[in-house]
Amino acid sequence: MDDYFLFYVSPEHIQGGRILFPGEEARHLVQVLRKRPDDVVRVTDGAGRRMKVRLIQADKKQVTGEIMSTEEVPSGPELILAMGMIRRRDRLEFAIEKAVELGASRIVLVRSDHAENVSLKPGRIDRIIISAMKQSLHCRLPAWEERGSFHDVLAAYGDNRKVFLAHPEGVDMEYSTNKERGDETGPGFNSVMPGASPTGCLLMVGPEGGFSEVEMEQAVTSGAQLIRLGTKRLRTETAVCALMVLVSCSK
Amino acid sequence: MDDYFLFYVSPEHIQGGRILFPGEEARHLVQVLRKRPDDVVRVTDGAGRRMKVRLIQADKKQVTGEIMSTEEVPSGPELILAMGMIRRRDRLEFAIEKAVELGASRIVLVRSDHAENVSLKPGRIDRIIISAMKQSLHCRLPAWEERGSFHDVLAAYGDNRKVFLAHPEGVDMEYSTNKERGDETGPGFNSVMPGASPTGCLLMVGPEGGFSEVEMEQAVTSGAQLIRLGTKRLRTETAVCALMVLVSCSK
Repeated sequence: MDDYFLFYVSPEHIQGGRILFPGEEARHLVQVLRKRPDDVVRVTDGAGRRMKVRLIQADKKQVTGEIMSTEEVPSGPELILAMGMIRRRDRLEFAIEKAVELGASRIVLVRSDHAENVSLKPGRIDRIIISAMKQSLHCRLPAWEERGSFHDVLAAYGDNRKVFLAHPEGVDMEYSTNKERGDETGPGFNSVMPGASPTGCLLMVGPEGGFSEVEMEQAVTSGAQLIRLGTKRLRTETAVCALMVLVSCSK
Repeated sequence: MDDYFLFYVSPEHIQGGRILFPGEEARHLVQVLRKRPDDVVRVTDGAGRRMKVRLIQADKKQVTGEIMSTEEVPSGPELILAMGMIRRRDRLEFAIEKAVELGASRIVLVRSDHAENVSLKPGRIDRIIISAMKQSLHCRLPAWEERGSFHDVLAAYGDNRKVFLAHPEGVDMEYSTNKERGDETGPGFNSVMPGASPTGCLLMVGPEGGFSEVEMEQAVTSGAQLIRLGTKRLRTETAVCALMVLVSCSK
């Protein structure tokens, strides 16, 4: 089996144990990787399933396969990333890609008080998210959306979630190496997710212009914990990486 | 004083309390920011000094200023990042930029066993590093260099430094919230830097193809600690961000 690549086929292309690979994936399989009938590949439906698939037909006309085995990948804690818009498209796209690689389950692009007015290309963002999911071997396709304000974001996702907001006047993220400590250790993933029913986190990162005073008030009122990301000024996409790493990559 | 921008003037342009702003910085001051005589700006020499400077002349011919005050910025622990080459230029440049923002003191680009053969543009890398230093308000210009192997890197920088190597079979980075614990808490910044004479860290990140067996053996023999960056496969530039964040952004 080819362990290096993970292919993505949305659920509507999967029926009765058979998979019909759509255009882009079919081309990649046949024209780039030169896969042939009987080759075995890994496929996800982006909804938490990872499948071993044996190709049946693999030519320029059509690529199909049969599912040999299916594994349900347990879902981790939900990480919702809400970030202010970034003017430069390469930086915005980089932030989205890295958030997916580092485990975001949902990305919210926020037209916040101090954000630049950016026009988005939804098809491009979809492709970046799919590509990053495959690259990092995730099996759940993160959703993304646009919101008009951080107030909207807090209303939609702030309840029953631990809210972290990246801010230079915040505290350092701290980690418990002792699971029993629970919340007393301050912010940190272990203390966020003590035991049963983890409802996940909402991570808030401001645009280059930062959060407005009104936004800060609303966030703090909603119980947001201010987290400092080192002592230096970070660009938005760097702050996105840093907060995602601190929440998802360490004990 | 303009607190948003930090200007960079290398030491040879500073003499007897006067600064002669070189081309790029002069243009930015006069033509973009419309600064005038008597305006006060922040300047670093990239060697640890931050200066408050009052402009004397500020026109298209020349921009000069006098130093009002100088502050020595304490140097933090030395963080040397050695990373395998990245084929795609945008990703390589992004990795370099993010490493600087996140506090690298030296960046070593390594033509390692599994790295792609990439031709570098030294002038462009210089500009990216300067720009990232200014953006993140650092006052020490990181050095960069190219090395032919990780073996070279270990020989040059492995002694008397804690070596961390990003690897999927490593352990999670752990943090001590209790400074007395010292080394017993396992890898982590506090345990790396217990008390006096911190000699810094060497961080090693492989190229897309990973480390070779020989490279791994050499690293482990040199006392490298393998650190896992979450559970998913990360691109090289993402692993660079993650390891830099774990070492520099948290307690």
